[in-house]
Amino acid sequence: MSFWGYAEEASDEFGMMDRGSIAIVGAGLIGASWVLVFARAGFRVQVFDPSNETRAGLLSWMNVRLAELQKVAKGIVADPEAIISRVEVFSDLGRALEGASYVQESVLETVDLKKSVCHEIDALIGPKTIVGSSSSGIPSSSFTEDCANRAHFMAVHPVNPPHLIPVVEIVPATWTSPDCITNVAKLMRDVGQVPVLLKKEIDGFVLNRLQGVLLNEAWALYEDGIASIEDIDATIAHGLGLRWSFMGPFETIDLNAPGGIQDYAERLRGLYAGMTRLPPRGPWPDAVVAKATQERRKALPESEISNHSAWRDSVLARLGEFKRAATGSS
Amino acid sequence: MSFWGYAEEASDEFGMMDRGSIAIVGAGLIGASWVLVFARAGFRVQVFDPSNETRAGLLSWMNVRLAELQKVAKGIVADPEAIISRVEVFSDLGRALEGASYVQESVLETVDLKKSVCHEIDALIGPKTIVGSSSSGIPSSSFTEDCANRAHFMAVHPVNPPHLIPVVEIVPATWTSPDCITNVAKLMRDVGQVPVLLKKEIDGFVLNRLQGVLLNEAWALYEDGIASIEDIDATIAHGLGLRWSFMGPFETIDLNAPGGIQDYAERLRGLYAGMTRLPPRGPWPDAVVAKATQERRKALPESEISNHSAWRDSVLARLGEFKRAATGSS
Repeated sequence: MSFWGYAEEASDEFGMMDRGSIAIVGAGLIGASWVLVFARAGFRVQVFDPSNETRAGLLSWMNVRLAELQKVAKGIVADPEAIISRVEVFSDLGRALEGASYVQESVLETVDLKKSVCHEIDALIGPKTIVGSSSSGIPSSSFTEDCANRAHFMAVHPVNPPHLIPVVEIVPATWTSPDCITNVAKLMRDVGQVPVLLKKEIDGFVLNRLQGVLLNEAWALYEDGIASIEDIDATIAHGLGLRWSFMGPFETIDLNAPGGIQDYAERLRGLYAGMTRLPPRGPWPDAVVAKATQERRKALPESEISNHSAWRDSVLARLGEFKRAATGSS
Repeated sequence: MSFWGYAEEASDEFGMMDRGSIAIVGAGLIGASWVLVFARAGFRVQVFDPSNETRAGLLSWMNVRLAELQKVAKGIVADPEAIISRVEVFSDLGRALEGASYVQESVLETVDLKKSVCHEIDALIGPKTIVGSSSSGIPSSSFTEDCANRAHFMAVHPVNPPHLIPVVEIVPATWTSPDCITNVAKLMRDVGQVPVLLKKEIDGFVLNRLQGVLLNEAWALYEDGIASIEDIDATIAHGLGLRWSFMGPFETIDLNAPGGIQDYAERLRGLYAGMTRLPPRGPWPDAVVAKATQERRKALPESEISNHSAWRDSVLARLGEFKRAATGSS
């Protein structure tokens, strides 16, 4: 199951009950949204935050969010009261971690703070507990190296807000145990998120690198006086973003040439190599195109490209109707 | 009106009737989709294509597309028969251009072909006719310089397929008349498209530059073995693309820091400056950030940021439900 197709109650089918409860460390915007993710999927959630104010505000924040969601998309939160009833808030880190099979660390993103909080967690967890950090771009190896249980730590990066945007990047350090990685990916799928796995640690991970280059180019185009902020935004919101809301860039180009991704690469990589305000680099190398083609052809046989394009168009048509209804007009 | 909120019949309110009919030159994939755009908005459409086969296939292509659209999103094409009845196909360019107030040139994208076709059109049009080229990245100045009516020519770049993706880039040459630009922008809005205006000609325009940098980085990440094609795609389709399907990158970051776009730039531009496999450039300059901030604050007062973020979340929630219904699961 994926993309909010989570079970309202965790069932033994997924072995979730065996895993105990979930601990959220840090109840800011991201932490609070994580509480929703796990609690709506049926988990008991134990939350720690050092701030009295943040702890006091959490349940009312959840009530407001859940009431809003009930209004616009009931399917996402079937039973707000049951969700709230699964959440317990603690001023003591040790009590929040008690019996937790998984800890989602969501404190402010500085290496020093992450390091000190992860070491505190490390000293308190049992031998089976796994810890994911919400770090949005700092590799976990820069703050977990000296942890006794460092094999149990990795970055598990959500997009804001995770209870509405399902992707999570799982970014292990070289010392993270493969079993822990597998378990976290499974847990994420079980609670309705879409895990993607990074095979190497890099700054910014995949998501913020893709966002970063697009933002850098958007700023450069604006700086050069090519178009207004509003018009640059419109090229995404009424153009590229429509396809990208249900298919990624590779799947998109795979449907944009009769012979699929390889055909597209041959036709257009020369164009894209030179076309940027950013310093250009060489065109996409042959060997890489061949490898990517293999992956895409496994996902979609070449004979299915035109059928799949027709399906894309039917989704685009419905997305248009949806957007008109949901956002007024444009 | 915008984004498919077109009038089923063109009315004199928009002065559309005064403008006569629309000519489409070249009835390939893009040309055929343009026929749908104008015909469903109530215009008479005269189509020229030199190929017997393409001409013969156009109406049956339209019938198939319209039948599909009727099934999934009736609102987009209220009356297929009326739409078809407005279309006439010609083997003679001159007859297709007769009485046309606007010509959408949609031939294959090479400078030589565009040049020769635009010169033919130039010799046949009346003094009030405007010509837009579907060029996806070649500036029109490279193929219209010697046209007698060159003030009436510009690039009007759609995204494939324009009857489902509304954005069009209007890219005038230095010699394009401001009146013609204004009229084309109005025409595009009248037929339900979302025009964006480029103030200067650049290769690739805005849309393919933004797509290009994201594709280049995606290929580089894949080449470096950071993640699979499927997982890179998922970071967009289940992550960044969800917001981008209804708000552009600037509006997105404007909502991702408590103080809006300026606050976001101050917090994160250092991070993004270094974070790319592509050769890095310096951080977004102060003066540019200040100017962009002005534009955004005109569009959305700072006091409205949190309300607008709540609205974004309500759309994301509904988009999630829509996606589940429209695409099965993920």
